[in-house]
Amino acid sequence: MTTGVRRRMGVEERKQQLIGVALELFSHRSPDEVSIDEIAAAAGISRPLVYHYFPGKQSLYEAALRRAADELAARFVEPPRGPLGARLLRVMGRFFDFVDEHGPGFAALMRGGPAVGSSTTNAMIDEVRQAAYEQILAHLKVEKPSARLELVVRSWVSLAESTALLWLDGRRVPRAELELQLVHDFAALAAVSAAYDEEMAEILVGLLADEPADGPFGDLVARLVALVPSAAAAPVVPDQRLR
Amino acid sequence: MTTGVRRRMGVEERKQQLIGVALELFSHRSPDEVSIDEIAAAAGISRPLVYHYFPGKQSLYEAALRRAADELAARFVEPPRGPLGARLLRVMGRFFDFVDEHGPGFAALMRGGPAVGSSTTNAMIDEVRQAAYEQILAHLKVEKPSARLELVVRSWVSLAESTALLWLDGRRVPRAELELQLVHDFAALAAVSAAYDEEMAEILVGLLADEPADGPFGDLVARLVALVPSAAAAPVVPDQRLR
Repeated sequence: MTTGVRRRMGVEERKQQLIGVALELFSHRSPDEVSIDEIAAAAGISRPLVYHYFPGKQSLYEAALRRAADELAARFVEPPRGPLGARLLRVMGRFFDFVDEHGPGFAALMRGGPAVGSSTTNAMIDEVRQAAYEQILAHLKVEKPSARLELVVRSWVSLAESTALLWLDGRRVPRAELELQLVHDFAALAAVSAAYDEEMAEILVGLLADEPADGPFGDLVARLVALVPSAAAAPVVPDQRLR
Repeated sequence: MTTGVRRRMGVEERKQQLIGVALELFSHRSPDEVSIDEIAAAAGISRPLVYHYFPGKQSLYEAALRRAADELAARFVEPPRGPLGARLLRVMGRFFDFVDEHGPGFAALMRGGPAVGSSTTNAMIDEVRQAAYEQILAHLKVEKPSARLELVVRSWVSLAESTALLWLDGRRVPRAELELQLVHDFAALAAVSAAYDEEMAEILVGLLADEPADGPFGDLVARLVALVPSAAAAPVVPDQRLR
């Protein structure tokens, strides 16, 4: 390994190499545009030898997706310390790193389609979504979420996906802005749900209580109040309707 | 036709009948669980005759999806009169009617997978998303949206999809609540974007100016202010950070 001389790889090592080569190619072009011939050439082995390790393109694709899914799920893990807004912002940074690195492969996967959609790939996508969902619940310190909380968290996970996909299509908004926006969107979706549900209101109030004034949530509230001064100026009376 | 006696149908009429039968079956079970035999039996014709009109299940599925997509896009059309919140709420009502009626077929389609995912079906889904996007821009009276506005509208369309899918999975939250919540979510996502972008702020302020105090947006603002009294109590000073 240290001599630079080519040597025979073991089966598992060769498989991992092919997965790495495939992921590298999928990060530049959609998987349905990448042939087994190209993967073989990039790995420096023959086409039949690729088929020796992976019976078809779909099985190599699924193995590559397995590695990518595990890697993404690992990026969701964040120590349960400090304000929640800052934690979520760090996770969003790592999520966009991943999306950035895997560009076309990520887009093709999430858009589905003949070359990439199967019950196996769909199950892996759902697994990553579930990992994201469970991480957020853990940070919220909620063990048994209500149907409304579950909906807020899962729909926000889906919002993060679609925002990333829209970003990939042209990259016309700086990603740092979108990372912060998604953190804000989480607070906004929670607030909408909290406006009509007591349990969600309790979670939201607890969440905001821990936030520093200069954190992402404090900043958002200050800006929104500046934007809609009528809301802030109105006295708070139950059941009052604002003009 | 008036005698009740069975008669021979024309080609187009028969095709439309088969599409209707298929959509009816897909509204109770996922398309990959419905066989051509069942469709033939429900239509009262032989299996070979079904294949005479549609060369395979995929072509019948795509024709059924075509009709459903056109029907859904038609439900997005709303006269440009009255406050925007109320318009959006009516559209959400018709959207959830559609989701309710087509249940398993809608879920299978949006989740993709071997039996239903193809470049043709994906293109039809994107077409419906585009129709929703264009309707909203028309109601906002925006012809050339900025990248940020496009992102807000498209990501909200995707949020509506995922909320509907989550609702279908168990129906644990009343759909009327989710219809209103999605209208609020639209305002919330727009507000988050507006907090950091002048063009979005202008659109948001214009939008809220037309809203009646007892409309869905007015109601939300009142409830949120009641929920976070500190935000309302703070004097509005530019760049001020709230605690």
